[in-house]
Amino acid sequence: MNAHPSVGVIGVGAMGGGVAASLRRNGFDTHVRDIRPEAMQEGVALGAHAHPTPAALAAQSDILIVLVVDVGQVETVLFGAQGAVAALRPEAIVMLASTLDPDDVATLATKLAAAGAVCVDAPVSGGPKRATEGTMTMMIAGPADALARCEPVLAAIAGKVFRVGTVPGTAAKFKIVNNLLAAVNLAAGAEALALATAAGLDIPTVVDVINASSGASWMFADRMPRALADDYAPRAAAKILAKDVGIAATFAARHRVGAPFAQAARAAFDHAVATGHGEEDDAIVYVCARTKLPSR
Amino acid sequence: MNAHPSVGVIGVGAMGGGVAASLRRNGFDTHVRDIRPEAMQEGVALGAHAHPTPAALAAQSDILIVLVVDVGQVETVLFGAQGAVAALRPEAIVMLASTLDPDDVATLATKLAAAGAVCVDAPVSGGPKRATEGTMTMMIAGPADALARCEPVLAAIAGKVFRVGTVPGTAAKFKIVNNLLAAVNLAAGAEALALATAAGLDIPTVVDVINASSGASWMFADRMPRALADDYAPRAAAKILAKDVGIAATFAARHRVGAPFAQAARAAFDHAVATGHGEEDDAIVYVCARTKLPSR
Repeated sequence: MNAHPSVGVIGVGAMGGGVAASLRRNGFDTHVRDIRPEAMQEGVALGAHAHPTPAALAAQSDILIVLVVDVGQVETVLFGAQGAVAALRPEAIVMLASTLDPDDVATLATKLAAAGAVCVDAPVSGGPKRATEGTMTMMIAGPADALARCEPVLAAIAGKVFRVGTVPGTAAKFKIVNNLLAAVNLAAGAEALALATAAGLDIPTVVDVINASSGASWMFADRMPRALADDYAPRAAAKILAKDVGIAATFAARHRVGAPFAQAARAAFDHAVATGHGEEDDAIVYVCARTKLPSR
Repeated sequence: MNAHPSVGVIGVGAMGGGVAASLRRNGFDTHVRDIRPEAMQEGVALGAHAHPTPAALAAQSDILIVLVVDVGQVETVLFGAQGAVAALRPEAIVMLASTLDPDDVATLATKLAAAGAVCVDAPVSGGPKRATEGTMTMMIAGPADALARCEPVLAAIAGKVFRVGTVPGTAAKFKIVNNLLAAVNLAAGAEALALATAAGLDIPTVVDVINASSGASWMFADRMPRALADDYAPRAAAKILAKDVGIAATFAARHRVGAPFAQAARAAFDHAVATGHGEEDDAIVYVCARTKLPSR
């Protein structure tokens, strides 16, 4: 066991870039890979090593943190041409930090085991700012010895770690349940503000009132300042929460649980994507909800 | 203008009792009226004067704070037999602090004006603990001179006051928009925990994860400890949020705003009331959501 393993981060967007920054600040030998060269450059500026392929990164990393958007990208960076599994170090740990369907995590863990790697199910929450500060919330599931080897990395990147089990997929279930609420709280916030708009209320005051009252939520407080500033540069693209709440709805159906709130949130985010807003910040659901208002 | 008006509180349940405590702590001559003698006794223990009727209270009060459950009760305590308007002091101010339909507040204001009283629309948020501490959030709408006369009272009972307009009904609109979200965030939290139950997750851990993650909300953090303790003694009875979200849905329909989240929350709270849980704490929606799970 190495107290300071070398760590590779695949997908250094807003969250992954923050993770790389936290790793560098804590002195880790850090490797980065992203399809966008400019994203890797930010890592290089922090002292990380950039790699032309996931395989090249894997050859230098004891622990890989995969923080790409969805399961398709995970499949590609792990098992595609020049994917990481082609060059994994012995006993390498692959931390799946993207928000994925729990069933997909279980399948990926099986495939990784067949390739000689250990899968740790490791979704994150908290946004880019906390990723950069090393204070994200993480949910972790995987074999005890693998989790022990991840400890120094977790100490560098997370403020709070919930160790929820030994079977990969378990942490993903917690994450999906959380993101169901994140999506609902945001889309319902957009509904509430659309109603307030129709009622002629001053929206900045409505936001202040809600933040100080029983309607407050983390997503509302975090996202609505962007909406009030009309700033939809993507810190968290709408397509990502659309994907997450779609997973939540599928997960609920799999367990035969009626989930009207998840369905309503799915409709709101699918609408945002379908009307061309998928690449914008998810606060755009505020605009989408206003657009549906009747003209007066 | 009197810097220390005498204040009457009609409806001294969890919220009104807290308001009376804050008034007494700040040295106000305080009067209380409730249909339950035991509720008035708590006020008397704090040094407030108990009255047998709203009219008897009104005869001793410069400012009346009405904190009963719904518009029917407001009508009764103001305009019913032995209602407050029969004995209002000259220039009396009636603060409507219950959560009411904005249209009903406007109607009540007109009727109060005809009776020689000034209506201040003054809904509150924050729960009994903050009411008792004098740190509630309040939304206020009414004539400027009336608001000025309310200032010492507001300083005693509220931590944050949003002065949102001069027309009674305006503050009620802010409150309804807030309570729409409070109801959604709680009922969606119950949906999420029902899903987590169906997926076999450890519910106390799920609650901890959500409180530390992007799914966090004020209602989830405030109510779910009651659910985990299986404690549904009413701090806020389910029928009240059922009433509020019903008003929100009606308000949305009046403005022709599609409100799928409000509708889903209304269904959840109406279900709680219809299955006999209206008098229990609103955290009971957790039990209701679990009850709907398929047997396995």
